[in-house]
Amino acid sequence: MTVSPWKTRNQRERDREVKREAVLRVAARAFNEQGFHRTSLDDVAERLNVSKPTIYYYVKSKDDILFECVRIGLERIESASRAEHLSGGTGLDRLIALWTEYARIVTEDFGRCLILVGEDPLPAATRRELRAMKAKIDHRFRSVVEEGIADKSIRPCDPKLVAFAGAGALSWIARWYDPAGPLDVDTIVQQTVNLLVHGIVQRQPDALPSSRS
Amino acid sequence: MTVSPWKTRNQRERDREVKREAVLRVAARAFNEQGFHRTSLDDVAERLNVSKPTIYYYVKSKDDILFECVRIGLERIESASRAEHLSGGTGLDRLIALWTEYARIVTEDFGRCLILVGEDPLPAATRRELRAMKAKIDHRFRSVVEEGIADKSIRPCDPKLVAFAGAGALSWIARWYDPAGPLDVDTIVQQTVNLLVHGIVQRQPDALPSSRS
Repeated sequence: MTVSPWKTRNQRERDREVKREAVLRVAARAFNEQGFHRTSLDDVAERLNVSKPTIYYYVKSKDDILFECVRIGLERIESASRAEHLSGGTGLDRLIALWTEYARIVTEDFGRCLILVGEDPLPAATRRELRAMKAKIDHRFRSVVEEGIADKSIRPCDPKLVAFAGAGALSWIARWYDPAGPLDVDTIVQQTVNLLVHGIVQRQPDALPSSRS
Repeated sequence: MTVSPWKTRNQRERDREVKREAVLRVAARAFNEQGFHRTSLDDVAERLNVSKPTIYYYVKSKDDILFECVRIGLERIESASRAEHLSGGTGLDRLIALWTEYARIVTEDFGRCLILVGEDPLPAATRRELRAMKAKIDHRFRSVVEEGIADKSIRPCDPKLVAFAGAGALSWIARWYDPAGPLDVDTIVQQTVNLLVHGIVQRQPDALPSSRS
């Protein structure tokens, strides 16, 4: 049987998906490195060794690309927050798992784009859509904190402030993390989460063995 | 003696300084609310009830305004970090004082502009200048953490990570704080700093009375 030199419909669709993802990822990197406003679709095409019309076969516009990059970043966090929901442990255990995932995501291409560029440059309607996704994620974090307060693994506090302080400390990593620097992502993430959990104050070691962990 | 209806040179200079500061502050607010790229000098002029040529009497360009706004924000933090240096207490006490000042500054017009817009939209040379100021402030924070570790008020940790986690958690306030919301700035700042110092983990109250503070 002669194998057809033409691709099947399925193969073509998979091909297209892989190429579209490459366009988005390379654009996200360009936005993260140069800034959204300083990046043109010509830059993106050049990084991919293709022409600008080729890019338009996969995406509608620069705004469309940014929308997709931010949406993918948010979707990864949302999906991590759903997975976290299934795992056991105290509220604090689950918050630690969720914070750790969050921090890892915001150091990846789409997650960094979510933090470094975000929805601000987009038109009002798309901004609102992405902000609604953000609010949903934020409420998920708050409810895990509330569960931790209820099961006494987290001390009484304002869940909103904890959710924002965690998001701030961990999102900041996306700004300063340097892959060429001396610290790897896992060390940075683990130590920053540990700081949020245990604080920085020196305690009497005899009085509090648990703070040594 | 007849009082001259003309202003003295000193009065004219003071007038000019007050008006220049008004241009910068109103522009910072517009950038914070609408975004830098969506704000025109016409918007700024309109908010001040003056014409655009009047604005040009005080500033050279939109870039010049942003540079000044970010520089003023950074200068306030730098000056807080110098004042902190003079006050006594442990390294932890001084870090708490410095974090509290930092958080208050980033919720004000110029400080918010530093966080929400920052130096990213500016040309490379000015970006470098502002980043050098940022690096200096960051090193000041790190050295206070180091002093706290040395005097055993802060537990052993990576000063760089602590400085960044604090800056992240506190800068985030500039993004979400809503003057019309239920929490005032002082409560938010105090509780967020407290979280960074003590963490969120529930401890045995008998073993650790100091964590109740």
